Parts: sequence; structure tokens; C-alpha cells
Amino acid sequence: MPEIEGKEIKQLNGAELKNLCERLREKIIKTVMTNGGHLSSNLGVIELTVALHYVFDFPADKLIFDVGHQCYAHKILSGRDGSFNTLRRYGGISGFPKREESEYDCYNTGHAGTSVSAALGFAKARDIKGEDYNIIAVIGDGSFNNGLVYEAFNSLRPLNTNILVILNDNGMSISPTVGSMHEYLEQLSRDDVHKSKVEKHSNIFEKFGFSYDGVYDGNDLEVMISKLFEIREKLKTQSVILHIATKKGKGYSFCEENPQQTHGIACGEKAKSISYSEALGKTLISLAEKNPSIVTVTAAMTPSLGLAEFFDKFPLRSIDVGICEEHATILCAALAAQGLKPYYAVYSTFLQRSFDEIVIDICSQKLPVTICIDRAGISGEDGETHQGVFDLSFLSLIPELTIAVPKDVNEFEKLLVASADFNAPLAIRYPRECNTVFDCGEEQFVFGKWEYLTRGTGGIAILSCGERSVKTALEINEHFNNVYSVINARFVKPLDTALLNEMHENIIITIEDNSLSGGFGSLVCSYYSDAANKRIKSFGCADIFIPHGTVEQLTKIYGADKETIISYIGEKCG
Amino acid sequence: MPEIEGKEIKQLNGAELKNLCERLREKIIKTVMTNGGHLSSNLGVIELTVALHYVFDFPADKLIFDVGHQCYAHKILSGRDGSFNTLRRYGGISGFPKREESEYDCYNTGHAGTSVSAALGFAKARDIKGEDYNIIAVIGDGSFNNGLVYEAFNSLRPLNTNILVILNDNGMSISPTVGSMHEYLEQLSRDDVHKSKVEKHSNIFEKFGFSYDGVYDGNDLEVMISKLFEIREKLKTQSVILHIATKKGKGYSFCEENPQQTHGIACGEKAKSISYSEALGKTLISLAEKNPSIVTVTAAMTPSLGLAEFFDKFPLRSIDVGICEEHATILCAALAAQGLKPYYAVYSTFLQRSFDEIVIDICSQKLPVTICIDRAGISGEDGETHQGVFDLSFLSLIPELTIAVPKDVNEFEKLLVASADFNAPLAIRYPRECNTVFDCGEEQFVFGKWEYLTRGTGGIAILSCGERSVKTALEINEHFNNVYSVINARFVKPLDTALLNEMHENIIITIEDNSLSGGFGSLVCSYYSDAANKRIKSFGCADIFIPHGTVEQLTKIYGADKETIISYIGEKCG
Repeated sequence: MPEIEGKEIKQLNGAELKNLCERLREKIIKTVMTNGGHLSSNLGVIELTVALHYVFDFPADKLIFDVGHQCYAHKILSGRDGSFNTLRRYGGISGFPKREESEYDCYNTGHAGTSVSAALGFAKARDIKGEDYNIIAVIGDGSFNNGLVYEAFNSLRPLNTNILVILNDNGMSISPTVGSMHEYLEQLSRDDVHKSKVEKHSNIFEKFGFSYDGVYDGNDLEVMISKLFEIREKLKTQSVILHIATKKGKGYSFCEENPQQTHGIACGEKAKSISYSEALGKTLISLAEKNPSIVTVTAAMTPSLGLAEFFDKFPLRSIDVGICEEHATILCAALAAQGLKPYYAVYSTFLQRSFDEIVIDICSQKLPVTICIDRAGISGEDGETHQGVFDLSFLSLIPELTIAVPKDVNEFEKLLVASADFNAPLAIRYPRECNTVFDCGEEQFVFGKWEYLTRGTGGIAILSCGERSVKTALEINEHFNNVYSVINARFVKPLDTALLNEMHENIIITIEDNSLSGGFGSLVCSYYSDAANKRIKSFGCADIFIPHGTVEQLTKIYGADKETIISYIGEKCG
Repeated sequence: MPEIEGKEIKQLNGAELKNLCERLREKIIKTVMTNGGHLSSNLGVIELTVALHYVFDFPADKLIFDVGHQCYAHKILSGRDGSFNTLRRYGGISGFPKREESEYDCYNTGHAGTSVSAALGFAKARDIKGEDYNIIAVIGDGSFNNGLVYEAFNSLRPLNTNILVILNDNGMSISPTVGSMHEYLEQLSRDDVHKSKVEKHSNIFEKFGFSYDGVYDGNDLEVMISKLFEIREKLKTQSVILHIATKKGKGYSFCEENPQQTHGIACGEKAKSISYSEALGKTLISLAEKNPSIVTVTAAMTPSLGLAEFFDKFPLRSIDVGICEEHATILCAALAAQGLKPYYAVYSTFLQRSFDEIVIDICSQKLPVTICIDRAGISGEDGETHQGVFDLSFLSLIPELTIAVPKDVNEFEKLLVASADFNAPLAIRYPRECNTVFDCGEEQFVFGKWEYLTRGTGGIAILSCGERSVKTALEINEHFNNVYSVINARFVKPLDTALLNEMHENIIITIEDNSLSGGFGSLVCSYYSDAANKRIKSFGCADIFIPHGTVEQLTKIYGADKETIISYIGEKCG
């Protein structure tokens, strides 16, 4: 396919535009099947994207994709056709909008619900500067559950500005969309667009100051083009919501039939045993069968968290609130306040969204909520907005919270079993993939205690937490003929101070799959700072935003790289 | 006034109940004028609270106050009449709901928008356990702007449970309430309650599954009692929103006329110079007069942040989004993405709410937003949910962010002036009160550099950041005849590593008005951990939730207490 700029699109006729859609679809399918990525959401918005580029003038006009799971066609149409085969590869095209990549990407996204706020900020800036261009937010019905959207809607009138919000309604977030807003959107979908205004359902969005227009078939290119031309005029005097229905996975039958499984596709993944998410589901089911207090809560990604079967088995004790991480967190606190035992499962990066509620609602009330943090550590191809490298830092500063980092999936299961009787706030973090099950370590799991994996006489103790770090620590020790002590520091808060106090080694190396800034290593440094004769060197993730690439590449460049640590020991600990 | 339990209330007749309201009003006014506290919001809900206690059965039924600014009458009516004179005093009655204090307080609040989520969690727990009681959330129209409320509403139907939400509409948060939801509520208020259903405005809340009932006069005790009896029956089969209008400050004419000034009353406060908030307003006005890019954004507390005059002078460049900290943060990021220079002013504790947006929207995009963090450090009588002791910890872990902590209000002004040309994310934190202006320190303010306040030969360097800590450091040094070096560590991120590298002292003491966990001291420990011969001792706030009390009391018990540090130096650094 020759490289196509947004501007050239305007010269194409109807047939050529349709042909362009097919070529985009083909290219996206081919690339994602090779590189991994978000498939069905991107396939759903091809006609919309082509219509947007046909009608509007990017980059002068501004296009903001909520979350960004739908930006591939836009990237190809804005000068990145030639480089699109590097999608999600280190140094290549990001799977999300990136200002650093192109002036056509005006605002980076990755977490849900931010697009309308950002569009309003752009519009307000335009007004203040007396400029003249259009601002468009494209948001899916899944993100539409997020409270941020309501906050932004609520401020439309006070901000007194004009934006276009395209509500891309495909009935799905990663899980099917839930909630009253979703039902309401479905109700609107059943209204015939040609019905007179009085016959239709009265419209929520108009109460916030939007002119509402919908529901149209977002996969019908001609409809989209004529609608957008019409709306472009309207935008001169008012804000508009264009409600469209699209088919997630449109044009690729396997995706259309399996939108949940094809939302995100990872390539070449091989787990060597049961995965952490499988272990979570399996263990919680077994606990819940005996313990009627156990409840699970998720925010829109139940299957990827391993909880689909739990939800099937215990519908009354399973809550998916949609992409509402804050609400999910408070629900858990309240459930715990009433004597239940809630498990909130969430990806590390999205846990950031409910930081305040973890502090205030869970921890300041000392409520026994267990937060199961999946995709912790460097998480790979989704890049900056999806790396799980901050959780140990932003959690360890919170009083009353215990933080566990099991060394492998077996220890994770033991920990979950122990958590059922743990009567305080608890966070357990683990990576996506499970690659290693260790045969070393004590048989007996003791809550709050670290364990020696090897004891050495070489004068160095290596403290490691989490599967990847423990593996690195053991490999390093093997390189040095196992003369050092390796410790599984499976609780990051509180530290096992009894073990730290007894440790005879004077050189301590910490390894973690988390930012060095405020992470496990810094806790150990602080603990020893006033003690004589301890030298501590911490290895972990650099204090930067880590871009996309494979976990291995990124760990080597930005993380606790084995070779670097071996060199350090060789050079500095002689 | 004799002690009154909720249960006894049920024996009173109409006249006695009205008399009770007057006695409560009198007691609250008297106590707040002595102890400080939230006056007008508490006066507004007295009739409602008496009616709730008359109709419902607490503590079996559950009452959750959003934010908690309105819980005084409830506290007095639930066994805390006798101790109410200890309100907000160390060891006394908290100004917010506290589970630790009474079984009548079932859920702690302090930050806006959490009550409906919490009520749903309680209701779900009740359903799971097969229990039978009522759950009531009382929420003001200011909190009603927060996205959390929408997230909770959206999940009412999927959760399939019944709660009562009382929307206490007084037209105010701390500032007057803004936004379309507020306008919509006003529209509902103009609907006569006796109008037939079809004549009324179609109701948003019904779309979320609530039965809506309103608007009633919340200061009319008889109406409240009969309405609540009626709704108590309805709650058996459905969720209800009761919309009431109350008068903030009801019954105390000065409050009624000045609800904004009397929202919170501090007692015995004396600033010794221009306060930080005054300096913020004054300096930003002077910058904005020359620089058309400067915009200020707040989330509902413009006057207390010192920005009322700025808002008057530059209405187009002033945005108050209501209690929507996340939305405010993204707006700032978007404004900066379009070349403007936004200043987001916020209290430290509420900044927690937008942690994810600071990480993703501001810092990962490297956008030059300046966050002005007021009420940082131990903040006193509002207790656990309002202490500003975590910001240095949760901000310093974020890549790309510069964090400044000026030593006094003069340095704060210099910093603000310098910030106008600073082209990256910046956070500036400062306490509420300004007590000291230092006459030491370099004349020239250099961005990113610390300064020696005194240079000594005693072998100890005291690194201090922020007014309170610098004052403590200088007093300690004076105690030891000024033999030590005292450094104004006015940037917590990045650290002034050039100065750290050159420092000849082997014992380093850090002092900060922030949690020791992940704070400034831990950054210094981490920096030096691999260096030979440096001993570091950090003083700051304990890793606990600090309760209410005076700043001085709390600092002495939980913070960087001067006497403790002097003892440490005397005993351990001989």
C-alpha cells in the first residue's frame, strides 16, 4: 500500500475511499497478527477514521482517542504507513497515540475516560488564544462508564466552548460494558433517528449542554462522511455528541465473533505452568467454596484477570463495575467494613487511578481488602501508559498496608490461602507471565517473613522480590559459584527487619521489577541508613517512563539487567 | 443539655423535637466558635439529622455522610454529647465520621464523592449476608459534581440493591457549586413537587434506576420526618433519591449571609506575614498581567487557595471545575499541550485524587503544568483524611516531575516567578500558615539548587526542606552553638547531587514535614547508599495515619520534633 497522508484522502472518490478502508483493514489485521496489538477495537473504527480524515483537517484540527485502542487507522493515514510494521516494537510505532511520534497525535492516552477532559482543555486553550480549529474526542462506551467523563460533561457549560464527542458504541469495553449508562445507550439505539424529537427518549446529554445526534451506523462510510460534514458546521456554535454504533472487529469474522478474546493479542506468548491469573481464579474459587465471605470485584477485565469462572460460579459474590477503578475500590472498602472479604483484581497501571481511595477508604480505615495486582513490573508492548513499575513505590508509602510479592506462582497460591485469614489491607503484586517455578526455598510459608534461597559466605546478600528478580538473583549467584546469599524478600512492607538485623553480609544488593524511585531498594536503604558498615546497591527500573518493547528488551535497557549487576559485583565488590 | 441517644429521640413530641434542633444548633455554634470546625454545613442539616434519627434505627441502619462536613448533629445525637466539647482536639471527638469513635459512624469520610459507592458496598454486603437494614448516603450538591457519584449511580442496576441517597442541595461546596448538574438541580428545584409527573422535567436519576423524590425543604422538620417515613417503606423494594434544599448556616445569621467564609473556621490563627495563599494569588496576578499564557485551575476552593482576586481579574483564564480533581488535572495537561501555562492550585490531601492523571497526563507527556500544593505537611484539626504528609512520597516517584519546597513565603514568590519560564512539570508544596521569614540564605534564587543557610565544622549537615523543617533545623543548630551546616533543600526532586557530592560532613540529618516512608530523607538515603562513610538519619512524620490535633501537638508526637532530634544528636553523634 502506498503511503497515504491525511491530506491526499480528500482527493479520493467514494469507491476509492471504500477501497482504502479495505486496505487499512487488511494492513491492520496482518500487522497485529505478526506484532500483537489491539485488533477488534481498531477494526471497528476504520470507516469512522477515514471519514474523519476526509472531513476534518488534521493536524490543524485535533483528534483525541480515549484510551487509544482505536488509533491504528489514524496512524496509517497520518504518515506512518511505511513504519506501521514496527508497531509495538522497541523503537517503532507505539500502539497508543504519542505526541512524540507525530504532530497528528495531539494528546497521549492509555487510561480510560480522559478524552473529553482533554478535548475541553484543548478547546479552552483555543478560545483563550483566539484560534480557530475543531476538537474531536472519540470515546468508546466502555470508557463512558468512567466518572471522569461525567466530570468533564458537567463542566461543558461553565467552560463555554465547543467540542465534538464521538461516542463509539460497540457494547464492549474489554469485557462487555455494564451499567445503567450502557442500558440507556441501548435505549437510545432503539430510537429511530428519523423519529421526531418529541417521540424520542429525552436525552441526558442535552442536559449537559450537548446537541445530541444519533444513533448512526459507524461502519457506514457514506453516512459517517455526510454526518461529519453536517456536524462540522454545527460545531461553530455548539458542542455535539455524535452517537454511533460500530461492530468491534468489523470485517474480520473471527474478531466479530470473539471480540473479548481479540481485544488485545499478544504474540509468541508461552507460559510454562499455570499462569498467575489462572492461579488467582482457581485459588479464589477453592477459598470461596468454603468461605461465604469471599467476594471478587473487577473493573471491566474479568477474563484477563483470571476470574471468569469465579464470576460464573458465584454470581452474587462477583462484581464487575466497568472501568471505574475508584468506585471498585470504595465498594471493596465498604464490603470489608461489613465483614466480607473482598478481593479486588486489577492491572498495576490502572491501580494508580484509585490511589486516593486505597489511602483513605481502605488503609486509613484498616479494612481487610486484598488487592491482587496483575501485570506488575515491566509489561512490554503497550508502553509508557501500561508499565506496572510504580506500584511498589506508591503503595509502600501508605500506612497500614502490607505488600507481598510472591517469588513464583506456587508461593502466590500459598499467599492467597493465607490472605483469607489476614485481617488488614493487603496488596499482592505479580507479573503477567509465569516463566519459572523455583525448587528452592522453605516448605513452610510464613506470613510477613522473608526466606533464604541460598546461604553463602561471599560477603554479599542479594535481596530480590518477585519472580523475575529472584530468577535474576539466582542466576547472578550461579555466575559467582553460589558464594552469596540470595533472599526471597516476599514482603516489601513491612520489611523483614528481624532478618535484616541478623544479616551478616556488609554488601547488600537489592533487585526489583519496579522503579528505583521509592521502591523496595529505597526502603532497604532507608532502613540501614543509620547503621554502620552496610553498603547497599539497588537495581530496578530507571526513573523514566519506559517505552514499548518486549519485556526482555526493556528489562535489559531500563530494568534490573543481569549483566549490569554481574559487572557491578565484579568491579565494585572485589 | 442532657446527653441524648438516638433511641430516646423517638419518644419526643413535635415541640420537643423542634426544641432539640435549637439546642443542637446552639451547641454546635458554641463549640465551633471555641474549637474551630465546619459550621455552616453542619447547621444546614440539623433538621434532617434529627428526622433521620427519629425515623431510622441507628446503628442497625447505616448512615454515611459524604465528606463528613455535616456529621456534628449526628455525633451529638449518638452518645457524643458529653464529649462534644473536645471536638477536633487531640484525643477528642473528630470533626469527621470515625468508625473508631462510635458504632454509629459506620464509614469514615473526608474526601468528596465516596458516599454513594460506600452505601452500595454496604447494601451489597447486606444482601450477600441476607441481612435486613437500611443504608443512607447524605451527599451535598458540591460532592455531586464528582465523577465517583456517576460511577456509583451507573452500577446501581447491576448491583441490584436498594439504598437511599439524600441529596442535600445548598448551592455550595466550599465555593458556590458550578456545572451543568448544579443547573439541572436548580431546574428540578423550580418544579413544584405537587406537579404531576408528566409535567415535571424528565429526570436523570430515574434513568439510573432511582426513584426520585423532591425537592423538599430540608430545614422543615415535619416535612423531613413524614417524607423519611414514607421513603423507609419504599426502600424495601427500590432505591430512592431524596432531593432536599437546605440553607447552609441555617439559624445563624452571620453564616447564612457568609456561607463561604464560615464553611470552615480555624481558631486562634495568626499569620505573621502575607500567607502562602495570598502570595500565590498576588504573584500569579502580577505574572498574568505580563504573560497571556498563564491560566489558573481550581477544584472548588478558589478563595481558600488565594485565587479569588485572580478569578475576578482574569475570568477567561480562570477555571473552577467543582470538586473534580481528576478532570482539573487533565484540563491543565491539555491547556499546556496547546502552549498555555496552567497553574493548578489544590490542597495536598486532595491532590491524591489525581495521582494517575499527574503520572499519565502531565508527567509522561512532560507538559509544563505547575501544581501549587497548599496545606502540605501536618495540617491539624481535620485529622487523618486531611493531613498533607504523603505528597513528597507519591510525587517523588514520578519521572519527569520537579518538586520544589520553598523555605519561606519570599522564596515561594521567587519560585513562582521562575516557574513561569520553567518548561516541564513542576510541583510546589507549602503549608497553610506562614510563621517565619528567614533572613539567611543566598540572595540569588537558583532553580534546581539548594543553599547553605549556615556552614559549620561540627561534622553534621542538616538537610531541611520547607518552612517548618528549616526553622527546626536552625533552632537545633543554635542549640549546638551553630557548629553544624544547615542546608535549605528546596528541591526534593531532583536532589542537588552536586551539593551532596561535595558535602564533607559524614553525618547527615534530614528533616521534613512529610511521611518518612518514601519522602525526602529516603531519597537522600538511596542516593548515598552505595557511598562509603555516610551516615544518614531522617526525621519526619511517622508511617501512620496522623489523627486530629494542633499542628504543634501533632508535630511533637508524630513529626520531626526538635527535642527528639536534639537528643539524637547528643546521644548518637558524640
